[in-house]
Amino acid sequence: MSSETKFRGIIVPLATPLSERDQIDIPGLERLLERVISGGVHGVFLLGSTGEAPSLTERLQREFISRAVSIVDGRVQVIVGVTDTSLVDSIELSAYAAEQKVDAVVAAPPPYFPINQADLAAWVEALAAEVELPLFLYNMPSHSKVAFDLGTVRQLLHHPKIVGLKDSSGNMLYFNQVVQLAQERPSFHVFIGPEELLAESVLVGGNGGICGGANLYPQLYVELYNAAADGDLAKIHKLQHRVLRLASQLYSVGDPPSGYLTGLKCALSCLGVCSGRMAEPLRSLSADKSKAIVQHLRDLGLLEA
Amino acid sequence: MSSETKFRGIIVPLATPLSERDQIDIPGLERLLERVISGGVHGVFLLGSTGEAPSLTERLQREFISRAVSIVDGRVQVIVGVTDTSLVDSIELSAYAAEQKVDAVVAAPPPYFPINQADLAAWVEALAAEVELPLFLYNMPSHSKVAFDLGTVRQLLHHPKIVGLKDSSGNMLYFNQVVQLAQERPSFHVFIGPEELLAESVLVGGNGGICGGANLYPQLYVELYNAAADGDLAKIHKLQHRVLRLASQLYSVGDPPSGYLTGLKCALSCLGVCSGRMAEPLRSLSADKSKAIVQHLRDLGLLEA
Amino acid sequence: MSSETKFRGIIVPLATPLSERDQIDIPGLERLLERVISGGVHGVFLLGSTGEAPSLTERLQREFISRAVSIVDGRVQVIVGVTDTSLVDSIELSAYAAEQKVDAVVAAPPPYFPINQADLAAWVEALAAEVELPLFLYNMPSHSKVAFDLGTVRQLLHHPKIVGLKDSSGNMLYFNQVVQLAQERPSFHVFIGPEELLAESVLVGGNGGICGGANLYPQLYVELYNAAADGDLAKIHKLQHRVLRLASQLYSVGDPPSGYLTGLKCALSCLGVCSGRMAEPLRSLSADKSKAIVQHLRDLGLLEA
Amino acid sequence: MSSETKFRGIIVPLATPLSERDQIDIPGLERLLERVISGGVHGVFLLGSTGEAPSLTERLQREFISRAVSIVDGRVQVIVGVTDTSLVDSIELSAYAAEQKVDAVVAAPPPYFPINQADLAAWVEALAAEVELPLFLYNMPSHSKVAFDLGTVRQLLHHPKIVGLKDSSGNMLYFNQVVQLAQERPSFHVFIGPEELLAESVLVGGNGGICGGANLYPQLYVELYNAAADGDLAKIHKLQHRVLRLASQLYSVGDPPSGYLTGLKCALSCLGVCSGRMAEPLRSLSADKSKAIVQHLRDLGLLEA
Repeated sequence: MSSETKFRGIIVPLATPLSERDQIDIPGLERLLERVISGGVHGVFLLGSTGEAPSLTERLQREFISRAVSIVDGRVQVIVGVTDTSLVDSIELSAYAAEQKVDAVVAAPPPYFPINQADLAAWVEALAAEVELPLFLYNMPSHSKVAFDLGTVRQLLHHPKIVGLKDSSGNMLYFNQVVQLAQERPSFHVFIGPEELLAESVLVGGNGGICGGANLYPQLYVELYNAAADGDLAKIHKLQHRVLRLASQLYSVGDPPSGYLTGLKCALSCLGVCSGRMAEPLRSLSADKSKAIVQHLRDLGLLEA
Repeated sequence: MSSETKFRGIIVPLATPLSERDQIDIPGLERLLERVISGGVHGVFLLGSTGEAPSLTERLQREFISRAVSIVDGRVQVIVGVTDTSLVDSIELSAYAAEQKVDAVVAAPPPYFPINQADLAAWVEALAAEVELPLFLYNMPSHSKVAFDLGTVRQLLHHPKIVGLKDSSGNMLYFNQVVQLAQERPSFHVFIGPEELLAESVLVGGNGGICGGANLYPQLYVELYNAAADGDLAKIHKLQHRVLRLASQLYSVGDPPSGYLTGLKCALSCLGVCSGRMAEPLRSLSADKSKAIVQHLRDLGLLEA
Repeated sequence: MSSETKFRGIIVPLATPLSERDQIDIPGLERLLERVISGGVHGVFLLGSTGEAPSLTERLQREFISRAVSIVDGRVQVIVGVTDTSLVDSIELSAYAAEQKVDAVVAAPPPYFPINQADLAAWVEALAAEVELPLFLYNMPSHSKVAFDLGTVRQLLHHPKIVGLKDSSGNMLYFNQVVQLAQERPSFHVFIGPEELLAESVLVGGNGGICGGANLYPQLYVELYNAAADGDLAKIHKLQHRVLRLASQLYSVGDPPSGYLTGLKCALSCLGVCSGRMAEPLRSLSADKSKAIVQHLRDLGLLEA
Repeated sequence: MSSETKFRGIIVPLATPLSERDQIDIPGLERLLERVISGGVHGVFLLGSTGEAPSLTERLQREFISRAVSIVDGRVQVIVGVTDTSLVDSIELSAYAAEQKVDAVVAAPPPYFPINQADLAAWVEALAAEVELPLFLYNMPSHSKVAFDLGTVRQLLHHPKIVGLKDSSGNMLYFNQVVQLAQERPSFHVFIGPEELLAESVLVGGNGGICGGANLYPQLYVELYNAAADGDLAKIHKLQHRVLRLASQLYSVGDPPSGYLTGLKCALSCLGVCSGRMAEPLRSLSADKSKAIVQHLRDLGLLEA
């Protein structure tokens, strides 16, 4: 796949179904992938934050890529997170992903040492030099501590290996500025993280969303993306309301700061898609909180009453 | 080693000498260990932040433990950092460290997902349940994002596997409170991270310091620790001045926020101890900055003029 | 004016022209007001952050209200900031503003003591109990430290004196949630602060923008507001590009974190509108930086070459 | 008073007794001042954070200075906080304080606009140029947002009007560095804010503490200061334990982040010293929490059982 390949639309940051500690829930993974593909998503993003990748062993990460690629079987694009505190580990996981013939890799800054922008740019260049696949940058300052400042994005914009940026900062001022920058290089794609901002991100020129809620309700996000791509404001308002309701109901049952992740995986379990088990240090919701999730899923029409 | 073993004094957070990417500078490691042991330190802490552990592969981490244990050969205590974003990886590295017969392991919170205190306590308990060796907690909020709140320390204080806390927060209010708490359990040790606070931490009841500067000048830190343990205020003032001078000169040559680490390793190289190579995402100091380090080492009397 | 009055569109957060320390540049104020009114703005906001209100004496604040109200002479709505560290001072300034027959007052949280949400809600209620005019809340966490959390907005939403919220947080996820909430009370208005987010804020249901750039180029912001209110995406893209360009050029000449304010006031001076003098603790741009502003104003077509 | 006057020991940051909103509890003020003076304190600091100064009107601030100066009647040193968002207001309050013949004024950075270090230094110089009395800088980043960086302290160290710094940051690494700096100018005094750090601040060379708890229990803080000044480590340990106990019991009854202030003033009320009324935006403790304070005061031996 050349770096000219286009990425767009809804790319699901796939949850990682786990049957036990360090073990994939394989039937759950199959059901989850069939759910999102049949729901119309444009791609899947394996081993992102929503996939709890940093909490997983390298062994499990590799098995997960291999199984998911085999299940997807070319039906949608596959991109793979390779974020790690160790550059060598990121390079090795990228090489494995390339063997598995995925479409791109995605890397957030190494999350342990606080670093400056010059260190960050040098790290991206060191990674890109060793990676065969197209590379997305992943801006996630709440988890990585360091953000890709606008000047750093500008500096890396024309790097032939880099094909875009996923922005999970929630800072739309920054997002707008990156979109403006990206007009200088059409093959640089800009995706939004927080699903509540999907519509407006596309309205201002973004290429799509990497939205966790699409694990649960892929059609809703695909329709919202399409409405935004078409500039259909009336439809956006209607669908946006449902996205905000889903997010505000399901992601606030679990305690902060991980209510999004624990709520999402619990909801997948309540829907019978896959196990709700979290990887440490996150913890599955209690039975009581699970009941609240079930009630919300009914209210949202995702589960029969 | 039982959890009743006493830890005290200067435990050097050993720099990890690297000859190339993902390769140990073995002669450098030997010289560094001989330097600190002959300088009188009470122990060495392998694979901490100063050791850039999160940037290293698991393979290199294991080789490093094995080689260092063999060189130390029982002359001083050895403790090993097992911090990882993945609990399973922390458990496996702890098991390896136990096979190598080190004295304790040290774990900072997993540094990717923001978590709350309940998650943090559950994670410590899950780790302690699987770890054979005595366990130190490592409070390092600037790198881990989450801190061990006082209530969490209180909750974990009597856990039979846990033997203490290393506090690198720099918050002496917190440190004092932990020291007060620790009076309830004499086998709970409290160590300070920032070397500038070593003396006062011991004066208020701390057990010692895990001070990076002891890689360079072990005698100074050992003397300062002894002066503080003896309550010799006049001697403290004299030595404290030298510690502050060393820190302010060597750790501010490199750009923030990693000037401490890059300055330390560059100084080791200028002293002929080991390679100054950093593991990504950090970068070695430039030749110009190296010269500034040499000049400071001369001013400090660590290098002949 | 009843609390049912509608607020919408572009409300300029008026710069405060100063001829000397603690002295209004009266001719400058007249020119500035004529400029924005003839530029089509829907209202003016006196004594906001852009007006450097916290840096001004109470005496000057009162004189400023009185003079501005007299110049505006009913042509557009006038709202007045009453933020103060002292509740009694906020109440007294509100009473003065009511005597001057302005349309509403605006209050950010008192900016000294860190407070919790319960304290914040109690403070709003204490203020609203003593204020005669409709009251806008002002969410500005970068300056006030405390933000109006969504739950606090919900709690205050139906307060009869409160007519809306100005959100300068730049957090569009929050803004969207407030807009959703506000659907429960049509007389609760939601305005955006950062001008770069004006268009999308209106697209998702906001009532308008309190945009500093409208001091300089009121027509541009009025047109962009109108385009967004009409859902004219093509026009938005064209105008949005100009807003981003103006902001990125003029607001980055001065040093952070006050480049927005110093650049704005310097540009007003370069355009011959009013004095560029800042109130302490901010400082006017140097002659060199002034020249850079002039060049940018030419590039933007605001000043003849 | 010349700038060569020495300041040392315990300077109480006096609570401001309020009988009603915007009204001083005059008998309470008399009792409070007699309590602290007879308890041996070296000075009183009027209108600091503990005095809730930013929440008070200028009128009340002036009355408070005048009354307190008259009650103190030269028995101890009096210093006065003049922090304000407006430089002109700070200058005018300083002039009033000079007329009242106090010993020094104290200024924290203006707390609304985020500013950089160059702005901060220029602001200090503008203030010092207009102030007749010796001036203390007040480092309080949790409330002012901006801190006096070490480089800024160095730059201002030899300013003839500036006589010291009160550091409430809690950052002992910074405090040690300022103490080192201050050795270059003996008339530059360094005081610590947080009472839990009083002893160690004096051990490392500080001049004393501006400790809120001295409103309640002046003798304890005076004794601890004396023990630290004498290097009597055994006595320090005994007294330090009591300070930590007082702080941990009384300051955690009220909700964060203002539990220190609400607990302190409630305790003064429970001891019969003065009214417990807070100035908005802070709120007095509830009756239930008041009972908890009474119980703690009994445990601490400050109130008869």
